[in-house]
Amino acid sequence: MFALDHVAIQTTDIPGTAEFYVREFGAEILYQDKTWAFLRLGQGKLALVQPNQHPAHVALRSTLEDLEAAAARHSLIIKTHRDGTRGIYLSDPAGNVLELIYYPPDYAGLTL
Amino acid sequence: MFALDHVAIQTTDIPGTAEFYVREFGAEILYQDKTWAFLRLGQGKLALVQPNQHPAHVALRSTLEDLEAAAARHSLIIKTHRDGTRGIYLSDPAGNVLELIYYPPDYAGLTL
Repeated sequence: MFALDHVAIQTTDIPGTAEFYVREFGAEILYQDKTWAFLRLGQGKLALVQPNQHPAHVALRSTLEDLEAAAARHSLIIKTHRDGTRGIYLSDPAGNVLELIYYPPDYAGLTL
Repeated sequence: MFALDHVAIQTTDIPGTAEFYVREFGAEILYQDKTWAFLRLGQGKLALVQPNQHPAHVALRSTLEDLEAAAARHSLIIKTHRDGTRGIYLSDPAGNVLELIYYPPDYAGLTL
């Protein structure tokens, strides 16, 4: 089973764009540094990423078992990120970029 | 208050792409016709739209009061859709397209 985890959109101005979502829509900043930001909007999460670092994408949360099966089906190697999450990037048939992401049980980061 | 309602991504092949999300990720089809589809992935909703009909966008659900205030701030006219929802499209400072959408109390459609 997969579930929508977050949506990532691109901006070259992380703080300015984050401020826009806070001011206009009451977004809550879960995390922000110079390179990216993570915002809460109701039950949903919006990531702001830089065009030279990440593609715009839709991230689907998965179990480790489902992540491993998807990686095997698509011949992709699972990467472990600095925060302990694990994942792969792939594209849907139309070329939209997807991230499949697994949060380990001891994950202490941005799953709020 | 605004909350993430759905994410819309583009494809020229609505049924083929919908089938991919069902097969690969267990998506549930909430609605599908030749021109667009609406999928459930956990708590999140993913719309598949055609490039010549809709931009890729992030849709934020809002109250009527907040929608009207946002429309006034941005000098936009609220449109009423065939299904009774009302909304506007605007862009964030980075050019990402946003839809602000209001579901009326008697809405009987795809809010599941």
